[in-house]
This record gives sequence, structure tokens and C-alpha cells, in this order.
Amino acid sequence: MFITFEGSEGSGKSTQINMLAAYLRQQGYEVLVTREPGGTHIGEQVRQCLHDVKNKEMTAAAEVLLYSASRSQLVREVIVPALENGVIVISDRYADSTMAYQGYGRQLDLDALGTITYFATGGLKPDLTILFDIDVEEGLSRRSIGGVEMNRMDLQEIAFYKRVRNGYMELVKQEPERWVIVDAGRPLDEIQNDVRRSVKAKLN
Amino acid sequence: MFITFEGSEGSGKSTQINMLAAYLRQQGYEVLVTREPGGTHIGEQVRQCLHDVKNKEMTAAAEVLLYSASRSQLVREVIVPALENGVIVISDRYADSTMAYQGYGRQLDLDALGTITYFATGGLKPDLTILFDIDVEEGLSRRSIGGVEMNRMDLQEIAFYKRVRNGYMELVKQEPERWVIVDAGRPLDEIQNDVRRSVKAKLN
Repeated sequence: MFITFEGSEGSGKSTQINMLAAYLRQQGYEVLVTREPGGTHIGEQVRQCLHDVKNKEMTAAAEVLLYSASRSQLVREVIVPALENGVIVISDRYADSTMAYQGYGRQLDLDALGTITYFATGGLKPDLTILFDIDVEEGLSRRSIGGVEMNRMDLQEIAFYKRVRNGYMELVKQEPERWVIVDAGRPLDEIQNDVRRSVKAKLN
Repeated sequence: MFITFEGSEGSGKSTQINMLAAYLRQQGYEVLVTREPGGTHIGEQVRQCLHDVKNKEMTAAAEVLLYSASRSQLVREVIVPALENGVIVISDRYADSTMAYQGYGRQLDLDALGTITYFATGGLKPDLTILFDIDVEEGLSRRSIGGVEMNRMDLQEIAFYKRVRNGYMELVKQEPERWVIVDAGRPLDEIQNDVRRSVKAKLN
């Protein structure tokens, strides 16, 4: 089972992923948590390049290609071998981020992004994708007070993040059976309950 | 005018490019020489990752995507602005390398590579491409005695380089008017004469 978490900045994905992984391990499942970009030796080199705030001149196309390179490495080196061994794989972001951020956010050609994503992933799709939905302004203010180091992707204009949020909603419409939307503006425990419920429903 | 040099390892491209650039500058042209992967700040970060012999586990797809990311940055940051200013741009490798090395050499899907290349370059094609053709074994032995530092792309099997050479010949067949094939097994001056003749023919 391959579960991905998506959503905008400051939506609290990482905390919830750690809570879910701990819970599933308690239940006796083997769980592997990974993240994008990164998650492999090569992917972490690419992550550094993508997140370096000095790389302001990066073109939108180069950005897509670097995210996709990191993803390709992660799929073949980590995700596919783990799935083949019956491990539950949880990834903090995956291909939907490219469609939402570069497709809807940066308004790049969605068909080309689809071809590139298929090329990078060999067509591997998540069984379940949990979208952490939060008001754009609230997410950004949480992010900036959260003590997290800001990276290149945090430095976009508000309109960009709004397009990203709408993009996610479009993706949900296209494959509603794969997605669960969680209101990320609530207390941690309430959110975690929703997350566990949707994972259990898929496991059964 | 945008001129690219292609060909296998040890074919002597770099030397010939420097000789051509010096000659064209003497003739009063403004010339910019660049190379792939690299040629920009971001591209050099990607080049390091691509050439690092420690990155043995790199997937063929990640390799394509990293070359394409570097290319996208080079096109928009360096090549297009120079061409718009009337500068002659000479690049040591460009998109044809992806088709020859990853398409024919690694036998990846040529259509997907075409889509990715178009996405990365915005469709920019060279006006003239000079192919340095040399017997595979001879090129490799030149490379290993040339005092050049070996990189990850030098460590492939002979059959790979043979597929690459045949791939270049296929590309020439598809667009014969863009390509000039130069026999790179001859003395430097003879080769340079051929190079200059083909560039002058395009300039007129």
C-alpha cells in the first residue's frame, strides 16, 4: 500500500505522517516514511539545488525536471522495492505536487507534465492520497512562525499558492476514489482520527 | 546562429570548438562558447551530480531529467539572450546527446524523450550540428590516455557506445540539412578546415 500526503505549506503534513507511521507500526505493520524531493542519496543532492534560496533564477521547466529526477530515483530505489516486500510506504509529497505547483501554480502545460511524470515514475500511482487543506493565508503564517527554515518554494506570491490550492481540488475531481480531503485547520488529534480512518478503510 | 557539436568520447570536440571560436572572433563575430551539462550556476550543480562516479545507482530516467534540467536553464539564461543579441552560440553537446545517449544508447522511449526535450528547450533547435565521428574503440582509448578526468558517463560498456554512434547516424538521416559529419580520426588542421567550411556555408 502506497499512501501520499499532499497539501500546501504549513498544513502540518509531517507531524501527521509521523503520528500515522507510529500508529501503524503499533498495529504490527512495517512502514517506510519518505519525502520529496529527496529520500535517496541522489535525490538529496537534487533537493539541495531545488531549495537553495540562492537559485532564484531557476526556470519553471528546470524546476519540474529536477523534482521529477528526484522522484524517479525515489520510485526505483526505495518505493517499488518496499512495496514488493509488503511494506506500507508513506510519502510526504509525490507526483500530484508537480501537477498542483508547476501545472496549476506556475501554469505549465499539463499534458507535458503528465508525460514527464509517467516517464519518471513508470506509471506508479498512490493507492490513497490525503490532501491537507488549509486556508492559504493561515498556512503561510503557520509556516513562518513554525521555526521551519524557509526554502525557495516558500518565497512565492499569494496568488501562486491560491492557484495551487485550486489545482489540488481539480486533481481530486479527476480521481475522487483516490483522494481524501482533510480540513487541516483543526486540532492535531481530530485530524489524526480522520487520517487513520481513511487509511483503515483502504487497508480493509 | 546556434551551432552545436556532437559526438562520442575522445572525438576531440572541445579542441575544435576553441579553434573555431578563435577563428570566428578574428573574423569580427561575437562568439559565446558553452557546454552541456552545465554552462549556468544551476547547471553546474546538476553537472556535478551527473558526473559524480559515486552516483552509480542513478536511474536512466533520472539521468535524462537532470540533463534536461541543465539544458532548460542554459537555453533560457544563456543561449536565447545571446542569440537575440546577434551572438554566434557554440555549444559542446545539446539535445541530440539525449536522443543518442539515453534514447539509442540506453534504449529509452524516443517519443517521451522528444516531449521532455521540447519542454526543456521550448523547441529551440540548432541551425547547424557538427558530428565528430570516430571509431568507438579509438575514441575510448584516446579518452583514457588524454589526461582527462573520467566521469560517470565514461564508465559504460562498449556496446552502449556503439548504440550511441548508430543513434547519431539515425538522427542525421532524420534531418540531413542540419547536420555535417566530420571524420574525427584525422589531423587537427584537416578537421578544423572542414568545420570552418561548414560554418561559413551556413553563415552565407
